[in-house]
Amino acid sequence: MKNTFGTAVSLTLFGESHGAEIGCVIDGLAPGIPVSEERIAAALSRRRPSGAISTGRQEPDPFRIVSGVYNGKTSGTPLCILIPNTTQRSSDYAAFTRLRPGHADLTAFQKYHGYQDPRGGGHFSGRITAPLVAAGAIFTDALLKKGIAIGTRIRRIAGVQDRPFEDLEADLALLQSRPFPVLDEAAGEKMQEVILEAKKDGDSVGGVLETVVLGMPAGVGEPWFDSMESSLSRALFAVPAVKGVEFGDGFALSDMRGSEANDPICLDEKGTITTRTNRNGGINGGITNGAPLRFACAVKPTPTLLREQDSVDYATGETIRLSSGGRHDPCIVHRAAVVVESVTALVLADALAARFGTDWLAPEAEK
Amino acid sequence: MKNTFGTAVSLTLFGESHGAEIGCVIDGLAPGIPVSEERIAAALSRRRPSGAISTGRQEPDPFRIVSGVYNGKTSGTPLCILIPNTTQRSSDYAAFTRLRPGHADLTAFQKYHGYQDPRGGGHFSGRITAPLVAAGAIFTDALLKKGIAIGTRIRRIAGVQDRPFEDLEADLALLQSRPFPVLDEAAGEKMQEVILEAKKDGDSVGGVLETVVLGMPAGVGEPWFDSMESSLSRALFAVPAVKGVEFGDGFALSDMRGSEANDPICLDEKGTITTRTNRNGGINGGITNGAPLRFACAVKPTPTLLREQDSVDYATGETIRLSSGGRHDPCIVHRAAVVVESVTALVLADALAARFGTDWLAPEAEK
Amino acid sequence: MKNTFGTAVSLTLFGESHGAEIGCVIDGLAPGIPVSEERIAAALSRRRPSGAISTGRQEPDPFRIVSGVYNGKTSGTPLCILIPNTTQRSSDYAAFTRLRPGHADLTAFQKYHGYQDPRGGGHFSGRITAPLVAAGAIFTDALLKKGIAIGTRIRRIAGVQDRPFEDLEADLALLQSRPFPVLDEAAGEKMQEVILEAKKDGDSVGGVLETVVLGMPAGVGEPWFDSMESSLSRALFAVPAVKGVEFGDGFALSDMRGSEANDPICLDEKGTITTRTNRNGGINGGITNGAPLRFACAVKPTPTLLREQDSVDYATGETIRLSSGGRHDPCIVHRAAVVVESVTALVLADALAARFGTDWLAPEAEK
Amino acid sequence: MKNTFGTAVSLTLFGESHGAEIGCVIDGLAPGIPVSEERIAAALSRRRPSGAISTGRQEPDPFRIVSGVYNGKTSGTPLCILIPNTTQRSSDYAAFTRLRPGHADLTAFQKYHGYQDPRGGGHFSGRITAPLVAAGAIFTDALLKKGIAIGTRIRRIAGVQDRPFEDLEADLALLQSRPFPVLDEAAGEKMQEVILEAKKDGDSVGGVLETVVLGMPAGVGEPWFDSMESSLSRALFAVPAVKGVEFGDGFALSDMRGSEANDPICLDEKGTITTRTNRNGGINGGITNGAPLRFACAVKPTPTLLREQDSVDYATGETIRLSSGGRHDPCIVHRAAVVVESVTALVLADALAARFGTDWLAPEAEK
Repeated sequence: MKNTFGTAVSLTLFGESHGAEIGCVIDGLAPGIPVSEERIAAALSRRRPSGAISTGRQEPDPFRIVSGVYNGKTSGTPLCILIPNTTQRSSDYAAFTRLRPGHADLTAFQKYHGYQDPRGGGHFSGRITAPLVAAGAIFTDALLKKGIAIGTRIRRIAGVQDRPFEDLEADLALLQSRPFPVLDEAAGEKMQEVILEAKKDGDSVGGVLETVVLGMPAGVGEPWFDSMESSLSRALFAVPAVKGVEFGDGFALSDMRGSEANDPICLDEKGTITTRTNRNGGINGGITNGAPLRFACAVKPTPTLLREQDSVDYATGETIRLSSGGRHDPCIVHRAAVVVESVTALVLADALAARFGTDWLAPEAEK
Repeated sequence: MKNTFGTAVSLTLFGESHGAEIGCVIDGLAPGIPVSEERIAAALSRRRPSGAISTGRQEPDPFRIVSGVYNGKTSGTPLCILIPNTTQRSSDYAAFTRLRPGHADLTAFQKYHGYQDPRGGGHFSGRITAPLVAAGAIFTDALLKKGIAIGTRIRRIAGVQDRPFEDLEADLALLQSRPFPVLDEAAGEKMQEVILEAKKDGDSVGGVLETVVLGMPAGVGEPWFDSMESSLSRALFAVPAVKGVEFGDGFALSDMRGSEANDPICLDEKGTITTRTNRNGGINGGITNGAPLRFACAVKPTPTLLREQDSVDYATGETIRLSSGGRHDPCIVHRAAVVVESVTALVLADALAARFGTDWLAPEAEK
Repeated sequence: MKNTFGTAVSLTLFGESHGAEIGCVIDGLAPGIPVSEERIAAALSRRRPSGAISTGRQEPDPFRIVSGVYNGKTSGTPLCILIPNTTQRSSDYAAFTRLRPGHADLTAFQKYHGYQDPRGGGHFSGRITAPLVAAGAIFTDALLKKGIAIGTRIRRIAGVQDRPFEDLEADLALLQSRPFPVLDEAAGEKMQEVILEAKKDGDSVGGVLETVVLGMPAGVGEPWFDSMESSLSRALFAVPAVKGVEFGDGFALSDMRGSEANDPICLDEKGTITTRTNRNGGINGGITNGAPLRFACAVKPTPTLLREQDSVDYATGETIRLSSGGRHDPCIVHRAAVVVESVTALVLADALAARFGTDWLAPEAEK
Repeated sequence: MKNTFGTAVSLTLFGESHGAEIGCVIDGLAPGIPVSEERIAAALSRRRPSGAISTGRQEPDPFRIVSGVYNGKTSGTPLCILIPNTTQRSSDYAAFTRLRPGHADLTAFQKYHGYQDPRGGGHFSGRITAPLVAAGAIFTDALLKKGIAIGTRIRRIAGVQDRPFEDLEADLALLQSRPFPVLDEAAGEKMQEVILEAKKDGDSVGGVLETVVLGMPAGVGEPWFDSMESSLSRALFAVPAVKGVEFGDGFALSDMRGSEANDPICLDEKGTITTRTNRNGGINGGITNGAPLRFACAVKPTPTLLREQDSVDYATGETIRLSSGGRHDPCIVHRAAVVVESVTALVLADALAARFGTDWLAPEAEK
């Protein structure tokens, strides 16, 4: 469904970087969920660039809820969020036929034959994640009321490592308070240094994000094509710049023996069946097992560079040297954290409503 | 859609490891595609265990095409393939309430409340990939006639590395001839040694598969939720034991700078716009750019072990020590290669039919 | 999704009239639903032709459940039903390029370019409704355990009218006992007379079926494209020969005034809000209101005739006179009743599972 | 998918009658299709009430295209249309807990538990068809450029009959010029008289619309659940007040004999295989046969009446007498014509893009 994700709960994205407005439509959300404009604003500000390590473009994101909320609560019918584009400067991207390496410029041309809106990347712009994040704030809130909490840390940037998750509840609380979401603040400072170094060189860096979900009920997801891994990865790879996704210990599992990779099954203090370790990231056979979900996303370096790169102008058919004069981020990994959490919340809301019915996410419903 | 993947071309899986038959239904395939029973048999034999490194269970896979083929060619209506289960020995898995760590036994119980067919893993069994592979042979053949070739190598097993892809066409031809799909035969022998070592210990090993697709047209895939990465990962994570997926240089991209990660854009000898390197795996902004697709899957070690593991019997609620007496593979990485190729072919057939129309895959249609 | 209907609960059809087997795959059905082979056989016998008014082709329908049932109950994973084709006589339909008027022969050729299986109508044959009916028996049973009962009467055949529904519960019980499903037995006899008259003339007749669903919960269905009318009509128009569908008083509503067409809202004896009349067929704004669902299907006369008709042979490009020598029904209206009920049960199972969660249809779940 | 229709080309509806804005998102439309704001405005004015027979509410419908159009042509990415609500007077509908008979008030309450936006019917309002019509203008235009023309006449209102279609091309041209879409102007005047009579009585009337599509290619649609009848009826029953849909001669077919109902197959003057009559409405076995599509929709009388009706106030639980003081239409049949055409165009655009590829609707593409 192209720009739509989900069945029981769905989200449809629209808009271009330099159009009047961008937005999304949420469908299938249970009626009666409180919608907090402050929480949406807070989520949007986590996505917004800030400080020396980010682009100079300031995006105040004055969103507007056009439908689907009545008296401060979801009505149960489609919820449309609009975010105006106020600060675009199209002159920064004048010659749209000059293809930016690492961007979708070439593939947009190959698919849309030159009719695409190329300004600022058009519909492919990372800007389009803003309505995703606004929607994500609503989903995240609704999940939290059901005891389901999502948190994301930067596992590494340009090779600089954060410390691993330890006490998940405490670590998630810690991350809430951090503008730059790492567990080890010293590592976070080092990361910001390497980002600034790259910036000085007109270059950029990437990194890895690791996400944890606490409180996810067992028995959600399906064998085969609607496995939780399948659904989550489908949404995670929609996030611009994500080029790898792994669950639990992921690629590291492939170097283990089975006796190490298998999570031993045991009883917890209440007698509930659980696993002693969580190398499989809370999912077996595509279905949640009640342990925390855990997965990581590889985020490639921002493709827009001040440094010159080889390219082609598709209008003239000539090879060129291209340097971006626009304002861009030397690193988007930290800003992508809230985007990753937003699509995670969308996937979980959809899977939970499919499993337990469309009223399940409503605050009143019995869990 | 649970056990169904695809829209323009779709596949629905059914069956259990120890039922009478397993199978699949393909829908939307263009009419007039020749269906070769030998090619299906050959694909099934690639999936079949063989030699010392595999389970003793012999699966001759005498498939049967029940519908959708007329006079040796696809009719355009649903194609059902059935594969009888002939050699199952249910006594190997007697106490079904004894949960096997690393398997879906626990989650199947959590989801289906004890009504699931537990024999040999039931619907979660790797056995269910057999109809996927039979279907994959039909898709793969149809794609090949359109100039689209898929190949998979074992990148590494238990830490032993194959050599990287170099000349893709030559390397794909090489892999066709190899029962154990590595480029470097010495590495392949070393891998088989570590597999046998693990077997001796009653243990198992995992690995990484790397897949390449040549000849894929540019401009296929969508921005956001139907990006080629989204569609491919959704299907790849449906393959049992896959816990990580990366495109192009994937997780390694996250340690590069943008100037290294971006593929410079250039003109090829015919003047077609292309990229000099292929670190992004042939996909930008979710859409194919005409370069080869390239991605890797992390395969965790086979969860069934002869070694004893801690577990729980859900009928008695007691903790137990569990050892599998059944016949099982110390490694399934090499057998998974054809499964990965099969779901890849399904995803591509679906994306191409969506892009170019339902007759595109027919041999007669103009490309 | 072509041959698949449904999301929460889905059904995929496959097979051709003269293939080895036809069948379907049900997905998403709750685990633990008892599957009664006798009820399936009984439903299939309702679909089967019998007596003078039907084709001579005898179809014993010895179905086989291939997957998804374990210990007599649904396992929760895909349920595949196979029905062998045993009695086809392909020589009856020798010259497949001679297009039968009123059939799909021409359109199958236009769509599949001659690759379609033409024997006995191939995948377009009414025969393919047999697996639909087998599946329908399982859905119908599960719904009945939740207090939801479906019944269908012949409203009219070739202009001969049955009496209208009066006491719905009593009338549904009455219909259960009638091999020829009318409320007024005298009308039923008259209908059978006109059918035999048509047969004598080498001709055929059509009619109208009216279906009622008791016990349907309120609040199911969606505004706009997933209205209950939308979902039901989508499935009902999949039934071969159905060319019209109306809900409640349907086309007759268009000749009423609003004061007559509106169902006055009142309180029932328990104080529940309900409607005094049911001209809207239990659905307002696409959503069930708790009143019985009521709708009718126009069934066109069987297209296969002994009488000669004008046609074309697409192989020779010549106009011809065509008479069917095969065994065919002068009327299929009575046989279509159980098919209409089967797709109705599928639609309701899907809508209820979407609304109340995937376990709702399980006998144990609280309603 | 609730408020979304379509796969290859899709449309998502959102908004409430008295919200700030209503709108829709179109996805999958080919790039390069010219978007004419005048044609959209013209379509909206066909939907707008006018004259004595309609509500006093004036809706200038100053729509705004928010995304998906670049330099006056579709870009290929999601196209969002917004229409502000400017003239609502919520005081007309003060006591929202007083359930209006024939409306969705009761079912909205049953589904959304009182959280629904009840003002002016909220998301169930006929007002929400405005963005459908705006989108429909774009689809209709694109189809017309491919030689596919859609026209709708009022077959009857309150029992007053128009003359049948005769020369389809001429009749479609005639309907283009008629603000009140009938073929026989005298019948149209009589219809308007009965509408005014009903209005005088504080009552309303319904009618039947008949739609024809010329130029539809053969071989589009699918057997079974995606039959053209299934897809069209799904969308047509989404149009508020539609309670019956029939294809070709529809319900009248059920009173014919097969020899009359079957359309004889013949060769046209160019030697193309066609049918002599078109009783089946251009569709056999769910697939278009190249003849004009023809179908009719039963539109029930407008439920809002000045006359008092019995109802219930769900807040107090008391029975009441209810009269609508708002401005409403004594008849919406004529205004529904453009809505029916709009959803028809959506269904056809989706089916054609699925059949022939996503670029097919672009003006440049070869047909």
